[in-house]
Amino acid sequence: HTPFFIVTELKAGHGLDFKNVVTMDDFELSCKGLYRALTIREKYMRLAFQRFPRTASKYLRDIDGEPFKPDDQLQPVFTPPPKNGEDPFDTKNLPKNLGYVARMKDGVIYVYNDTAAADKHQPKDLPCPDYATFIDDMNFLIALIAQGPTKTYTHRRLKFLMSKFNVHEMLNEMEEMKELKMNPHRDFYNCRKVDTHIHAAACMNQKHLLRFIKKSYRVDADRVVHNLKGKEVTMKELFQSLNLHPYDLTVDSLDVHAGRQTFQRFDKFNAKYNPVGASELRDLYLKTENHISGEYFATIIKEVATDLEEAKYQYAEPRLSIYGCNPNEWTKLSSWFVKHRVFSPNLKWMIQVPRIYDIFRGRNFVPHFGKMLENIFLPVYQATIDPQSNPELSIFLKHVTGFDSVDDESKHSGHMFSTKSPKPEEWDIVKNPSYTYYIYYMYANIAKLNQLRRERGMNTFTFRPHCGEAGAVTHLLACFMTADNISHGLNLKKSPVLQYLYFLSQLPIAMSPLSNNSLFLEYAKNPLLEFHKKGLVVSLSTDDPMQFHYTKEPLMEEYAIAAQVFKLSTCDMCEISRNSVLQSSLSDEAHFLGANYLKEGPEGNDIRKTNVAQIRMAYRHETLCYELNLIKEGLKAE
Amino acid sequence: HTPFFIVTELKAGHGLDFKNVVTMDDFELSCKGLYRALTIREKYMRLAFQRFPRTASKYLRDIDGEPFKPDDQLQPVFTPPPKNGEDPFDTKNLPKNLGYVARMKDGVIYVYNDTAAADKHQPKDLPCPDYATFIDDMNFLIALIAQGPTKTYTHRRLKFLMSKFNVHEMLNEMEEMKELKMNPHRDFYNCRKVDTHIHAAACMNQKHLLRFIKKSYRVDADRVVHNLKGKEVTMKELFQSLNLHPYDLTVDSLDVHAGRQTFQRFDKFNAKYNPVGASELRDLYLKTENHISGEYFATIIKEVATDLEEAKYQYAEPRLSIYGCNPNEWTKLSSWFVKHRVFSPNLKWMIQVPRIYDIFRGRNFVPHFGKMLENIFLPVYQATIDPQSNPELSIFLKHVTGFDSVDDESKHSGHMFSTKSPKPEEWDIVKNPSYTYYIYYMYANIAKLNQLRRERGMNTFTFRPHCGEAGAVTHLLACFMTADNISHGLNLKKSPVLQYLYFLSQLPIAMSPLSNNSLFLEYAKNPLLEFHKKGLVVSLSTDDPMQFHYTKEPLMEEYAIAAQVFKLSTCDMCEISRNSVLQSSLSDEAHFLGANYLKEGPEGNDIRKTNVAQIRMAYRHETLCYELNLIKEGLKAE
Repeated sequence: HTPFFIVTELKAGHGLDFKNVVTMDDFELSCKGLYRALTIREKYMRLAFQRFPRTASKYLRDIDGEPFKPDDQLQPVFTPPPKNGEDPFDTKNLPKNLGYVARMKDGVIYVYNDTAAADKHQPKDLPCPDYATFIDDMNFLIALIAQGPTKTYTHRRLKFLMSKFNVHEMLNEMEEMKELKMNPHRDFYNCRKVDTHIHAAACMNQKHLLRFIKKSYRVDADRVVHNLKGKEVTMKELFQSLNLHPYDLTVDSLDVHAGRQTFQRFDKFNAKYNPVGASELRDLYLKTENHISGEYFATIIKEVATDLEEAKYQYAEPRLSIYGCNPNEWTKLSSWFVKHRVFSPNLKWMIQVPRIYDIFRGRNFVPHFGKMLENIFLPVYQATIDPQSNPELSIFLKHVTGFDSVDDESKHSGHMFSTKSPKPEEWDIVKNPSYTYYIYYMYANIAKLNQLRRERGMNTFTFRPHCGEAGAVTHLLACFMTADNISHGLNLKKSPVLQYLYFLSQLPIAMSPLSNNSLFLEYAKNPLLEFHKKGLVVSLSTDDPMQFHYTKEPLMEEYAIAAQVFKLSTCDMCEISRNSVLQSSLSDEAHFLGANYLKEGPEGNDIRKTNVAQIRMAYRHETLCYELNLIKEGLKAE
Repeated sequence: HTPFFIVTELKAGHGLDFKNVVTMDDFELSCKGLYRALTIREKYMRLAFQRFPRTASKYLRDIDGEPFKPDDQLQPVFTPPPKNGEDPFDTKNLPKNLGYVARMKDGVIYVYNDTAAADKHQPKDLPCPDYATFIDDMNFLIALIAQGPTKTYTHRRLKFLMSKFNVHEMLNEMEEMKELKMNPHRDFYNCRKVDTHIHAAACMNQKHLLRFIKKSYRVDADRVVHNLKGKEVTMKELFQSLNLHPYDLTVDSLDVHAGRQTFQRFDKFNAKYNPVGASELRDLYLKTENHISGEYFATIIKEVATDLEEAKYQYAEPRLSIYGCNPNEWTKLSSWFVKHRVFSPNLKWMIQVPRIYDIFRGRNFVPHFGKMLENIFLPVYQATIDPQSNPELSIFLKHVTGFDSVDDESKHSGHMFSTKSPKPEEWDIVKNPSYTYYIYYMYANIAKLNQLRRERGMNTFTFRPHCGEAGAVTHLLACFMTADNISHGLNLKKSPVLQYLYFLSQLPIAMSPLSNNSLFLEYAKNPLLEFHKKGLVVSLSTDDPMQFHYTKEPLMEEYAIAAQVFKLSTCDMCEISRNSVLQSSLSDEAHFLGANYLKEGPEGNDIRKTNVAQIRMAYRHETLCYELNLIKEGLKAE
């Protein structure tokens, strides 16, 4: 099968082609640092059953002088789609109560054999780096990304990767296309793509929401749907109180679409979630908890799901919120999920946790940050220990695939995470802790939870925070340590070291250039194309179709615009689709990427399913190995 | 009702604000030239029953010292949509034979009372500028667009228009949005938009064509569909001869989508019209004339029409080809149209004439250029004189709304149109005549034809050529004289005088930035936004969904991408939609723009139908008047 041309073309440049720029000492220093950074990420991924690529592990073992065993590669566990006739809401086979006790201590949930062990704090062995270790690792990385020689080295490698891809493109573009043309029955339209980052409350487009509101009024005008200042009111009365008639509503008056006004204004953007600026309508149509038990919201989501099922090759991973104000949130959310049977084979659920402790504390909803963490995680631990104690939650958790951490990253917290930071239970001031503080505690609780769940044969959760949309580059550093994958990643532009590490560890990034275009970065300046060329694993996602998209197929709109503006080839688009599956909770589905998808290079690619040229796969694999090999050489030289 | 803020803001700058840069003499010279240019266009528009805006006419009459009579404003005549129950193919009420004789002389068709008059060349009075007059007018304009002072003046005015719009936007953006929010029931989604430039042979998207091919094979595999080297073959045999099985086909192997390979390569782009590179499949699926009488092509078009009818607010003006190789082309095309009942209220038909005389002459299909013109126009004249002689053609012509002139403008013909150019009947060399030569003879024949048809109470035709996509700026000059409106217009970037004249005469331009992006100009460099801001009348069109678009809603995709890349406001998008109706053959439909749409300024805008803010309309009108008034002042000064 056709070898790609670049190998021979660039042979002349093989070896330590940077010698002229970096001294041998600097080279060795950089490699040492990068090596350690990779081992840190590998460790955190293992402990949380998150993904770390085989190729990087292999090189790390090689450097360590240890054998590489592919079977040691940990993977998250996702609930497979229900088999024919199986009811996704069936509670019959819920596992038995283990009788364990779960309690929070210093912001992390510990599991004990029983109350006595709990009282003596003799927890079960669910290993997780304590915060001292975390801070150590973090400080090492903070130093690394600021280290001159490593900055020079990674900057140069990234530049080289860019040029190398450009050369690859010029030499192999037609060959790649030929491969795709020879590939029967599969093209961009019917290769699987996952909307890896989308918020449930904005997963419909503005026109869909408008149509739904009008329809609901035609049917339900006289239904009691809301509690207005203590009085139950019908939909008619509710709209009257707002001086509105749904017939007159338009997408303009609905006003849920981001525009020029939202650029650099996350606050205005958030306000757009209120249709016609009325939080009552957000409550009625976009919330799971309200006077009608979130019926409309469930119906809208199921309509979106139906569209995806009809499109057949499109999937989405919508986020639902858990705030941590109240321990009952999970029960309410899961009962909404079960009551309205909000299930679709084309949807996989994620839980988003907004980083707004400061607001809750200010309103006295929680006494300290530890309570917020407890509200978020304790119910999940309890349902994991004794699923039958909360069957609805247990069922819901089967369909939850991960956690997201969300909010405006450009808000500076003023807090710097260190060993001197107060413990969560001591954090009772109104100020918000830093991004990293949130990230560490979410990671730690998820990691331990996953160990417990995996022991029980249950599905595990990935940690997939919003990261690098704005704010400090340290956000990207914290997620390099802890996240299975991230959303946005724009700020990788600002740190060559982190960008190179994201490349080496093939850490997936769900990018949403249309969202960025309305909020943080003009479309043409989006680094998506650059990242893609360099070999970072990027996928395309919509973020909020309600706010950003115009057509009935938001994900296709996202791809179409990227294809046009960045002049992506079919191979590029299919590679990005493949990345989206790899990054998602659907990577395991055998008919998506093929059975061998975990194997390295072209071997792991089933072109009949992915429509990605083997030449491209070979290029990517060889390029990655070349960079990892340099690190190996750097360490050997030492 | 709210006045917009700019009036007061810019009052200080009122008057001859360019005085510092242009001397009074130069100013007068420029105004004189621009005035004459406008009168030239007005004259050509009148003679062909094409559109010229009221506001400009008013100023011209004012300068002439003549009264302005709005009723003198000529308009094209379009066939109204069939009333309830009316059959659009009904031939019952075709007008009687007038008994006239039509003959071509010097490339133009003349109409005579009878053969005797024809033999003596005593034609009926259907006035049209002869080619000497045309060349005079053209030479004046050629000198004008090269005239230093006029270039400076218009360049400066255009710069001013740009800045003025930016100021308007900053001051009135929120006010405009407020107006739109207050406008009940109408938003961007349900305001009418017309795809003003689309080729029938590529009006479906690639996925649609693929699906149609697969479906046709499932149903019709054993049907005789093609004549392969003299032998009738079934669809199965046809695909076997191509070594293909439709089941394996993908959009990649279909290969009808433009990509990076087509940039600056109109030839490659044209080749993309052949599915799988096989002209046999183009014949079978995308032609009106073939072994199955164009049945598949008709079916695909009707499917596209159904999509538009369901979308409800979207219309399209697809182009069908008449080549001029053969006098029977019209009969065949119209019989295809009638046989398959290719009618939809959401489609209005245009005839495109490719400028490829050189190819036909080279293959000896025609003896000279005059014959090609005769083949194109004589059948239409004859059907106009005696509709019953060709009822199918007469019916078809009722649904034809205009002519387009198409081909690669970047090909240089080497011929310069002058009084010394050979007459069409003398043009028997293989070389192609120039763009302008084509344009003049198409215009002349359309103008006379329209006079004849209007006399008979028939619909008239507009001339809407492709113009300024590439090639010399003289193309834009020829169309300034002759065209009701144009497609593309990119090269207006290169001539400030022409750009300013297009602005003053509000000459509509159907722009297709996605098409340009694949062929001639990167998206971000497209002048659409600039033209729109300056107040040129631009609309958005798809050109070739098969080649350029990805989603099921190509026109919405075109709008969505423009909205995102150019950050258009809702008011901008609705103004562009309104422009598309104004430019189209649907401008007359009362429920599209409202009954007063021909009136000037806000009076002509029915916001309840268009969703364009009155503030915007007032700004546009006042700005146009200001510029026209400057010309008046310049002429008064003299």
